[in-house]
Amino acid sequence: MLLSVLQANADVLNVEANLRTIDEAAGQASQAGADILLTPELFPVGYAPQRLAAELDPAALPGVRQRLAGIARRHRIGLVYSLPATPEKLGGSSEGNGWQITATLLDADGVPVLHYGKVHLFGAEERAAFVPAQDPPGVVEFNGVRTSLLICYDVEFPEAVRAAATRGAELLLVPTALSAGFESVPQVIIRSRALESQLVVAYANHSGREDVYDFEGGSVVAGPDGSLLAAAGQGPTLLFAEVATDAVRAARDDVPYLRERRPEVYRTWESSA
Amino acid sequence: MLLSVLQANADVLNVEANLRTIDEAAGQASQAGADILLTPELFPVGYAPQRLAAELDPAALPGVRQRLAGIARRHRIGLVYSLPATPEKLGGSSEGNGWQITATLLDADGVPVLHYGKVHLFGAEERAAFVPAQDPPGVVEFNGVRTSLLICYDVEFPEAVRAAATRGAELLLVPTALSAGFESVPQVIIRSRALESQLVVAYANHSGREDVYDFEGGSVVAGPDGSLLAAAGQGPTLLFAEVATDAVRAARDDVPYLRERRPEVYRTWESSA
Repeated sequence: MLLSVLQANADVLNVEANLRTIDEAAGQASQAGADILLTPELFPVGYAPQRLAAELDPAALPGVRQRLAGIARRHRIGLVYSLPATPEKLGGSSEGNGWQITATLLDADGVPVLHYGKVHLFGAEERAAFVPAQDPPGVVEFNGVRTSLLICYDVEFPEAVRAAATRGAELLLVPTALSAGFESVPQVIIRSRALESQLVVAYANHSGREDVYDFEGGSVVAGPDGSLLAAAGQGPTLLFAEVATDAVRAARDDVPYLRERRPEVYRTWESSA
Repeated sequence: MLLSVLQANADVLNVEANLRTIDEAAGQASQAGADILLTPELFPVGYAPQRLAAELDPAALPGVRQRLAGIARRHRIGLVYSLPATPEKLGGSSEGNGWQITATLLDADGVPVLHYGKVHLFGAEERAAFVPAQDPPGVVEFNGVRTSLLICYDVEFPEAVRAAATRGAELLLVPTALSAGFESVPQVIIRSRALESQLVVAYANHSGREDVYDFEGGSVVAGPDGSLLAAAGQGPTLLFAEVATDAVRAARDDVPYLRERRPEVYRTWESSA
């Protein structure tokens, strides 16, 4: 399966411009033979937690989702997008009222096949504007690849990736909004997540300024041996990487981390910590 | 605190030669001002699980421990060494009778201040020759630094490093025996462990052939920002790195991974997996 990853600059609260960016990327990716396009965290509305909480009209969101479904359908490509959503909307649970940061996987017919709500919110602004989700990442078979979703800060926690891997994920798609100065996240942590849980991890970041945030791209796709299958520089780009489930299976046969972890022992450690 | 890390070739079942190597390294490290010397997995007896199980006389081990204590005392340096041991010997618990692979931290008086038994055995040979331990890594304050131990394959599991970090570890000392071909472990996983749990991780490997195994060094010390504080090539060497607890505290203030992980949520995930 050919995966494409959009790294781009969103225009905060300019949904028209951002959907145009996604539409163009989906067209280009589809023409190149990609089966799926991963886009950054909150890209259709821009990454600006406080402005979204203050200015984004919830009534506009169903229309945005419909248009994203239209993009997937028109280009015959799977699409991962990230938007604010209330938990009830997506059938999940949360700790309070208000928006979660969510991600949705559409199939090439524009039909949602997987939702995820961000469990680990990053920083005071996100926590003021959103509520954390608490459901584990789900796994769905997409074009023959068992696929899961996490969002941004989530993937920095090995526990979250383990939850996807132990549920069978072979591919983990991660919309992110990683500020400048944290390059060790894609370069070290993402590679380790892919290697230690033996799956493909794709990490799609913004590029450029949005609201008060500076993003410097650095999107990556890491393989189950910890190598980088694709890596972006700072500017807008479209990455491609082949997702090979046989490489995932070979890695899991070679060093069976998932089978040799000892959850029953870890449980006794948690209670004694 | 100045840490030193021995990377060397052990001579299987030639305890005299191996203790001489440790003695010389301890002298050199002490003269350079090091407070502690970390040595590789099973170094005093050599890494050779099946030969150790068949040929090593258990009655010889107390004497080896005494001589290691003498090395620490004579050079006024802390010492981490790894030997086979029965669980009862070290006050731990295990899943059966037989030897565990263990590590011991001696203070500069040669007094044992911390023991650890390897929880994740690697490969069929280790599992045939040893029994796995199941106690979590302990933490002890050593020269003002909260210090913990893991062994080799253990550190590849993020769960094991989390157990040390959530118990307060600022420094994790890891004797290892990493075969050629797994360079991504020190270069990717160790750096991520240090970064995601925000502590210093030191990883001491063998160098050269022992029994049927080829070791190619690559020992490292990684800092709480994921950078390499020291890194060895393939050959025998003595690494040095300054362990700064203020860097650990700064990293934990900057991005509070340990405070923002959600163990209560992970517990519900485990039971639903």
